Amino acid sequence: MQKKLMHVGPSFTSYRIQMAGVSENTGFASPDFLDAMKYSLEGLLYVAGADDSYMPFILPGSGTVAMETVTSLIPRGSKTLLLTNGVFGDRWIPILTAHGLQMDVLSADPGHAVSMADIEEKLEGGDYQNLIMTHVETSTGVRMDIEGVSKIARKHVERIIVDGVASLGAEREDIARLGITAIISASQKALGAPPGAALIVASRSALEDINEFSYFFNLKNWITPMERYLEGKNGYLSTEPVGVILSLNRVFSDIRTTGLEARIDDHRRLSLALNEGIEAAGLKVLAERDLWSNTVTAVLSDHADEIVRRSMDLGIEFATGVHPKLLGKYFRIGHMGYVNDFDALSALSVIERAAAQSGEKVRIGEGVRRAQQVLYDLSHGR
Amino acid sequence: MQKKLMHVGPSFTSYRIQMAGVSENTGFASPDFLDAMKYSLEGLLYVAGADDSYMPFILPGSGTVAMETVTSLIPRGSKTLLLTNGVFGDRWIPILTAHGLQMDVLSADPGHAVSMADIEEKLEGGDYQNLIMTHVETSTGVRMDIEGVSKIARKHVERIIVDGVASLGAEREDIARLGITAIISASQKALGAPPGAALIVASRSALEDINEFSYFFNLKNWITPMERYLEGKNGYLSTEPVGVILSLNRVFSDIRTTGLEARIDDHRRLSLALNEGIEAAGLKVLAERDLWSNTVTAVLSDHADEIVRRSMDLGIEFATGVHPKLLGKYFRIGHMGYVNDFDALSALSVIERAAAQSGEKVRIGEGVRRAQQVLYDLSHGR
Amino acid sequence: MQKKLMHVGPSFTSYRIQMAGVSENTGFASPDFLDAMKYSLEGLLYVAGADDSYMPFILPGSGTVAMETVTSLIPRGSKTLLLTNGVFGDRWIPILTAHGLQMDVLSADPGHAVSMADIEEKLEGGDYQNLIMTHVETSTGVRMDIEGVSKIARKHVERIIVDGVASLGAEREDIARLGITAIISASQKALGAPPGAALIVASRSALEDINEFSYFFNLKNWITPMERYLEGKNGYLSTEPVGVILSLNRVFSDIRTTGLEARIDDHRRLSLALNEGIEAAGLKVLAERDLWSNTVTAVLSDHADEIVRRSMDLGIEFATGVHPKLLGKYFRIGHMGYVNDFDALSALSVIERAAAQSGEKVRIGEGVRRAQQVLYDLSHGR
Amino acid sequence: MQKKLMHVGPSFTSYRIQMAGVSENTGFASPDFLDAMKYSLEGLLYVAGADDSYMPFILPGSGTVAMETVTSLIPRGSKTLLLTNGVFGDRWIPILTAHGLQMDVLSADPGHAVSMADIEEKLEGGDYQNLIMTHVETSTGVRMDIEGVSKIARKHVERIIVDGVASLGAEREDIARLGITAIISASQKALGAPPGAALIVASRSALEDINEFSYFFNLKNWITPMERYLEGKNGYLSTEPVGVILSLNRVFSDIRTTGLEARIDDHRRLSLALNEGIEAAGLKVLAERDLWSNTVTAVLSDHADEIVRRSMDLGIEFATGVHPKLLGKYFRIGHMGYVNDFDALSALSVIERAAAQSGEKVRIGEGVRRAQQVLYDLSHGR
Repeated sequence: MQKKLMHVGPSFTSYRIQMAGVSENTGFASPDFLDAMKYSLEGLLYVAGADDSYMPFILPGSGTVAMETVTSLIPRGSKTLLLTNGVFGDRWIPILTAHGLQMDVLSADPGHAVSMADIEEKLEGGDYQNLIMTHVETSTGVRMDIEGVSKIARKHVERIIVDGVASLGAEREDIARLGITAIISASQKALGAPPGAALIVASRSALEDINEFSYFFNLKNWITPMERYLEGKNGYLSTEPVGVILSLNRVFSDIRTTGLEARIDDHRRLSLALNEGIEAAGLKVLAERDLWSNTVTAVLSDHADEIVRRSMDLGIEFATGVHPKLLGKYFRIGHMGYVNDFDALSALSVIERAAAQSGEKVRIGEGVRRAQQVLYDLSHGR
Repeated sequence: MQKKLMHVGPSFTSYRIQMAGVSENTGFASPDFLDAMKYSLEGLLYVAGADDSYMPFILPGSGTVAMETVTSLIPRGSKTLLLTNGVFGDRWIPILTAHGLQMDVLSADPGHAVSMADIEEKLEGGDYQNLIMTHVETSTGVRMDIEGVSKIARKHVERIIVDGVASLGAEREDIARLGITAIISASQKALGAPPGAALIVASRSALEDINEFSYFFNLKNWITPMERYLEGKNGYLSTEPVGVILSLNRVFSDIRTTGLEARIDDHRRLSLALNEGIEAAGLKVLAERDLWSNTVTAVLSDHADEIVRRSMDLGIEFATGVHPKLLGKYFRIGHMGYVNDFDALSALSVIERAAAQSGEKVRIGEGVRRAQQVLYDLSHGR
Repeated sequence: MQKKLMHVGPSFTSYRIQMAGVSENTGFASPDFLDAMKYSLEGLLYVAGADDSYMPFILPGSGTVAMETVTSLIPRGSKTLLLTNGVFGDRWIPILTAHGLQMDVLSADPGHAVSMADIEEKLEGGDYQNLIMTHVETSTGVRMDIEGVSKIARKHVERIIVDGVASLGAEREDIARLGITAIISASQKALGAPPGAALIVASRSALEDINEFSYFFNLKNWITPMERYLEGKNGYLSTEPVGVILSLNRVFSDIRTTGLEARIDDHRRLSLALNEGIEAAGLKVLAERDLWSNTVTAVLSDHADEIVRRSMDLGIEFATGVHPKLLGKYFRIGHMGYVNDFDALSALSVIERAAAQSGEKVRIGEGVRRAQQVLYDLSHGR
Repeated sequence: MQKKLMHVGPSFTSYRIQMAGVSENTGFASPDFLDAMKYSLEGLLYVAGADDSYMPFILPGSGTVAMETVTSLIPRGSKTLLLTNGVFGDRWIPILTAHGLQMDVLSADPGHAVSMADIEEKLEGGDYQNLIMTHVETSTGVRMDIEGVSKIARKHVERIIVDGVASLGAEREDIARLGITAIISASQKALGAPPGAALIVASRSALEDINEFSYFFNLKNWITPMERYLEGKNGYLSTEPVGVILSLNRVFSDIRTTGLEARIDDHRRLSLALNEGIEAAGLKVLAERDLWSNTVTAVLSDHADEIVRRSMDLGIEFATGVHPKLLGKYFRIGHMGYVNDFDALSALSVIERAAAQSGEKVRIGEGVRRAQQVLYDLSHGR
């Protein structure tokens, strides 16, 4: 049986997207790469909801590379309020610490989000110049209210930095409208390209004052290269992952064709089908219902690791839980990238079977039936 | 949304199988082609259930090429009883006619099979040297009782020729045990390779008396080439479809790995899930229940053509009906080749939605639920 | 070391063309197949130099399938003059014989072509309704003067049938202007697509009187399907090799982009570089200089088979000789399809080295130098 | 005409290697990725000539990422002697500067290498704990005498760091024997995989004292992940470029099959053919003859940029010169990765033609002839 990848790391991509990256003889100075790079940089602005006052960056690397690079926007001596709903929110702590940057941290329990009241109170009571939040927390599937937080934060801080690793391309970001300073992501998550590229969109005004704690992570060094790429010229600084960019180019072309709104709606629809299907089958979703994200669904089960193993045998690779408070107590379904209705049904089919085999009381068939109903009810002809 | 092909012609294949056929620099004399050809010829004997008294043939062409080529086994002046359950059974008529071969025809109504009683009566009442039957009739999804027919036929005729185009690799053929003279097929159907190769397995004794009505269709001309290929040597007569053979090689390797029995069981399981899912959703299967085949399901509906059109929009390409008595009144689901559990659920999901949109009274979700139950009940860890 | 295929069967194709044929979910009724089929049929007319009075056919099969199918244009009772310059010219004999068609044969020694004088004499002395010739004889690399022969033949016969298997797409055919009745080819030769499709272009008036000796080989049965494909509709008669057609579609698209003239010129240029390179290296070309074809070069050597074996080890697969009068005394270089300047130099590099290793007196480096000069002198900026 | 990439960035790779990276459903926790990662880490040790006292690292990134990461081996307060033969040697300056590390710099003119005498004098006269050298300088094609420098350096410094970006896999490194502390490279250069992975091999003892100036660039954070990968377990820290690793795995498998020695010899042979071909054609190589590297050839010409442009039109993409002292006065041929004899001849063919078209006095054909002679003379049956 062919295997599906519904992990939360590199998630479901399509053969078509991967093949777009196979180009035997394309180098970083080749015209087709330069076209793809320009188009991808523009596409990055588009999915972030950025306007001309923002600058896009695509670097060789990963989400973590994007995190540490965007940190160069934070001036020495300034103070940051970090909101964290899980493992990937927590990752900002050692990064900021490595560069001697001061911060306070507001954390939520797994499945929950830091509350607006707590944020407001903290911002009013402290002297913060920066706020960092994670739009969708990969470790728990919780979506933060990006609009609500931004509205409050804009009143108190100069810089709002959003980790959009698990959201960019599948959730509405709208950074210009929300006054967000910078958003980061990576090629392999919600966008559904292969891993290898770190993505950043940053306000041009914020780029004027860079904290130069590194050569590679220094956004200042990347401005000219990216300006050149945006003009269709070779902007070599460090070798870009050529194949990944060619794939990313195809992703952005697909998004332009579908329209970002329709793509986001589709992810929302699939997410609802999956989450409701999980509960109809008799399992429990970790995140509170109003925090369900479009891209990650965490499912509670005392047999979580066994379900992941059995699901692998049944043809789908899910992700085990990684939150230290719930190790072995939940697993995660990634529904990013090119996931579709068929994958949602397949995921539920496999989970029902694997959970039953693992000793969970599940209602075989009820999960897929509920998902099918949701898909039908919310369907719009696609 | 990515499209699935669940047609009855080239049916669901996998990217992996297609890619096996991409080999930039392989010609008909290249070692890797010669290996693949030998392995495929041996694999063909295996899936047919043939022993050393049979000879395998792989020719450039299609199922129809296989039909006309195998006709060279029928001596001038002999008489054939042709059993036909639909359009592809009927195709033997112009072929035999073109070569001046005499025949009588027993036909069944769509959804039915010629009865054993009728066959027996006809064979006893006439002077036939040959019998031709279609194992699975692609136009209706009806499976003929190959064992029952063979048992009767062996008493009366010298040659039993089986059209296994829609069955070889997904139904038990067992031609040596059943005393079948020859079976034909094509690469793109139940085997799940791309189209381009005509497949024949014929008894070596039957090859001694060839009706030489053609150069290409003359099996005698192909014996030496195939003997050479079986020895791993270049057996060029006419250029083989190199890429198709490389893909076919991979298919046979997969079948050897899984085991033919397990592969057939899996198709039976998927077929049951699909057929019962169709009926649970409130639609009607054309074939009588005990004639359900492992590879083709024909579904009755007054909105058949609309359902096929809407399904295409929803992501799956099914086949319209082609039986002249039921045009526009049914459609067909192909579940050949590399189809799997996920495809069965996806097919039902799409059919429920497309049928509802077309005005059929369907119970949304009941088809997928029933299929999921069947898959779970009959599951064996795959 | 990566291997190059410079055989005369499936010849050099490109990864790009093969990949064009990989389309996981395309069947014979899928819109993208129907587009490709229509475009390929039109492209076939274009490369043959046909006009509206001709009809194109693409069938599952091979060159031999095309030969036997086009034979259905020859009426019972008519008489054919067959011109043959080698093995593939000779193949028409058993085909015509199988269908009881009368013929006289004019043969040339290997490396030579039947002379105009002999043809004229024969035509004047006999009562022929048909003439068959091979444009480029694959077994010897000899090109027949298609224009000269046509001019004479038109005065004497009703039907001129040309075997363009090794020429269509790399030599000028111009069948409408020359009054040729039909030309055949196959996907995998001069056109450079993978093997699997038989190609025929036939005069519509000749199609009115078909010799119905077969079902599949009966061109009458294929008229409606092809008419439908030309209208962009499903024209199913027997399953087309879907992947091969998708590749062929890309080939025709490339030819339209380059222009047929430029493509033919390029083959002529490469052929000259190769042939002159061979002679500069100290080896001898089998064909007389004014019969050198654009696609096949036969090279004389007493060590021919050893050279082929050693060349394989050095990275290029050439073809051994097959002409019965010269077995083991020559080998063949295929320069069809997507062969380019680099391949010509590589071929000569390998031949020089393999020939020297085999004991031939060759001037190492002189072949590649001469080829480079020819390529430079005839270069036109590509 | 199909394009060849003989750039010095991502250089010639093969379709086979790129396709190895296409795996629709492989994530960072998938068994096939874990196998590939373990095998690649072991392969990295092998090509570096490392033993058990070394630790391999594969990170998402580029050569520059490897440079900045390996800098974490240099303790604060220590002093470095940097040897630089060009642009990429110079890049260490801003990297070390960004982290407040002290250094002295010895530079050579383009085409030359820093002399042993200068190195010895400097080391004896100063108090250095670290030495950094570039094995092959990509900007000039100059190969440094790694053995000679190491021998001297070992007497004076604690840490020798080698930039092997343009050499690892095509030049002998032998770091254990030479007492080298660490070597860095990237996936896309001499190894011939696609870009996306930064490669480091470091002495385990040097890892005990890490300069923690960053989160991502802190080698200490990567030790446990790599240890786990070496045990075949998931070692997630930051998402690895899954496809690139799958390709790299195939490269290392190829190298194990051929043997590292044979691979290096082959590159040396090709390099000699290219360099001597260039001079036979009448052009001049930038590097002194005893500094010719196995992977990069820089060619002097006043028409360098025009030659690069015309070569692109003729089918090969070379690299323009980037050394600030010689901009527009030279171009570079990359002969890394999967380059072979055919590519060497093709490169010379194109350069001769492009140079002639650009007004250089070249002897058309003499370059390819000389290369063919070198290839023949040094040939060993491959």
